[in-house]
Amino acid sequence: MNETSARRIQPPATVVAWCGDDATGFLRLLDQTRLPCETAYLDCHDTHGVWDAIRRLVVRGAPAIGVAAGYGVVVASQALKAEGFGDKLTAAGEILKSSRPTAVNLAWAVDRVIASARGLESDPPAAREAMLAEARRLHEEDVQLCANIGECAAGLMEEAGWESLLTHCNAGALATAGIGTATAGMYVAAARGRRLRVYCDETRPLLQGARLTAWELQQAGIEAVVIADNMAAQVLREGRVDAVITGADRIAANGDAANKIGTYGLAIAAKHHDVPFYVAAPYSTFDLSLAEGGQIPIEQRDGEEITRGFGRRTAPEGIATYNPAFDVTPAELIAGLITDRGLICPVNAETVGRVLGGS
Amino acid sequence: MNETSARRIQPPATVVAWCGDDATGFLRLLDQTRLPCETAYLDCHDTHGVWDAIRRLVVRGAPAIGVAAGYGVVVASQALKAEGFGDKLTAAGEILKSSRPTAVNLAWAVDRVIASARGLESDPPAAREAMLAEARRLHEEDVQLCANIGECAAGLMEEAGWESLLTHCNAGALATAGIGTATAGMYVAAARGRRLRVYCDETRPLLQGARLTAWELQQAGIEAVVIADNMAAQVLREGRVDAVITGADRIAANGDAANKIGTYGLAIAAKHHDVPFYVAAPYSTFDLSLAEGGQIPIEQRDGEEITRGFGRRTAPEGIATYNPAFDVTPAELIAGLITDRGLICPVNAETVGRVLGGS
Repeated sequence: MNETSARRIQPPATVVAWCGDDATGFLRLLDQTRLPCETAYLDCHDTHGVWDAIRRLVVRGAPAIGVAAGYGVVVASQALKAEGFGDKLTAAGEILKSSRPTAVNLAWAVDRVIASARGLESDPPAAREAMLAEARRLHEEDVQLCANIGECAAGLMEEAGWESLLTHCNAGALATAGIGTATAGMYVAAARGRRLRVYCDETRPLLQGARLTAWELQQAGIEAVVIADNMAAQVLREGRVDAVITGADRIAANGDAANKIGTYGLAIAAKHHDVPFYVAAPYSTFDLSLAEGGQIPIEQRDGEEITRGFGRRTAPEGIATYNPAFDVTPAELIAGLITDRGLICPVNAETVGRVLGGS
Repeated sequence: MNETSARRIQPPATVVAWCGDDATGFLRLLDQTRLPCETAYLDCHDTHGVWDAIRRLVVRGAPAIGVAAGYGVVVASQALKAEGFGDKLTAAGEILKSSRPTAVNLAWAVDRVIASARGLESDPPAAREAMLAEARRLHEEDVQLCANIGECAAGLMEEAGWESLLTHCNAGALATAGIGTATAGMYVAAARGRRLRVYCDETRPLLQGARLTAWELQQAGIEAVVIADNMAAQVLREGRVDAVITGADRIAANGDAANKIGTYGLAIAAKHHDVPFYVAAPYSTFDLSLAEGGQIPIEQRDGEEITRGFGRRTAPEGIATYNPAFDVTPAELIAGLITDRGLICPVNAETVGRVLGGS
């Protein structure tokens, strides 16, 4: 691994940050709902502020949600009195976890930060400082996980000679504290002089691909081409793409991967055209307690995201909608899992267990 | 065939009409760019007006474009002097044909209406009346073609017991002068008391599914559920759909069908889930001069449809796009072609030739 070169690559924006020298500070988030037109930040000073920011996708992407939620626990703890501190902290953690059900990193980060305060419940200031330290470690760790994923993916790109990729949603720098997951290899490869073209599914209903992935690749000087989601099969058919790389919100023990709605259909289309389909994710996205993807809870979101997703109404009043926010791509459609611990290929319970089993 | 009952079903809107008793009248179009929020009409009084209305998708859908273009020839002929009338008419026809390249009905209707004036070039008023009569026949014929397709599809639905369908784009009443192509069977079956649920792909970039199909099914009292295009694979996976039915803009001699972008990916997803995929179209949509779908010209449209498709910018300034308006679904992914001349199943050059060869 060439850790140094990957570490040197700066993400195109600061997605999540702790403001302040100690646990009396606050959480600052890049407001991704306002990209690509505006670069604005949102400060979170209490539990509800953090919950609402995650719920409204001000911060999104499994790893970034995890980092934000880690700091979010510290913010939530600031209002808690000494009496019953431990129980109240657990309750606040549960509220934070309820903001998004699919991304496993959210619950994982909340639990981990709360656990770091164990034994300090009778001394809230000390507990807060311990939790802030843990949240910072989690943040720093995410930067490193992205860098490691980038090394792994860039190696794969180099070896296979890929020049044109397709991605769905945003599993980019904006979805993490570092250089992204699906995008990590693109940034590393580009930094090493590789010319890449990346087709970006716009990703309805919330357009994370058009608004966010296209924006961050453009910032980094990588050629991005935005397409509507339903054009991907045609783009694949025309031989324009060497490989598809997406992120994931949760991966089961057998390698089935939940990701933004549309990923599954894209994986089917890639298979149909013999284009390899890869999923990039850190170890924290794996949920080995779930044997297979059918057990991953799928968030259903408000139908107005479809009927009024752009401010103005695009479907008749009173029309029914169906709006699952995620789908699950079965392991058999995934050529490989690109992780911070290396490439998992082929993808099955045994290979996943071998690489991730110890975590 | 129960022609009478199908004829009784009224389409939910008047898509295209000739205003006036004779060839001095004008063409009136329902402005579909303003649906579902507003029901407004656009009157066309010259060649450019018709060309622009077709180009801007005020009227869209292969059969409706054909009917509009038929009347459009009459409108275009009104400004032509007697001298060189025939040549000028041909030139005006070429302009009209250039408005959209993929739908075969456009060129077909223009040529047919111009041909009806043959021998009358020295008498423009007589030529215009002959052309208006032909355009009216074409219009009436389209109503009948839709009714016949509806009978064929409703029989299929009845036989197979389908209760839940999925469609892409709008191959509905709004795409024809009658009750549509893909929707025709839905209207006939519903009129006979069959309860149906229809999932409507919203159909990016121009949202014909969300804006138009959902609207017309709602008007007709048929349950419509709008989904983003990228949700179709998940909806299929969940077993929510008995069959997929779409329209077509041009069908080659071997049954390969060009239709709105996204149809191809949907057909792949349907195949993956063993859900039958049907294409409904009148004989006029077949182009037997093309051996296979690779020969069908595919219209590329302005990238702003993707980056600014909803009035406001949804992708960064200066970003590249790729915006093919159609794709071609190969015959092997199509379970059957539902035509005014009956069902073509299986779909191949021989079966297509047998049913359509005489036209």
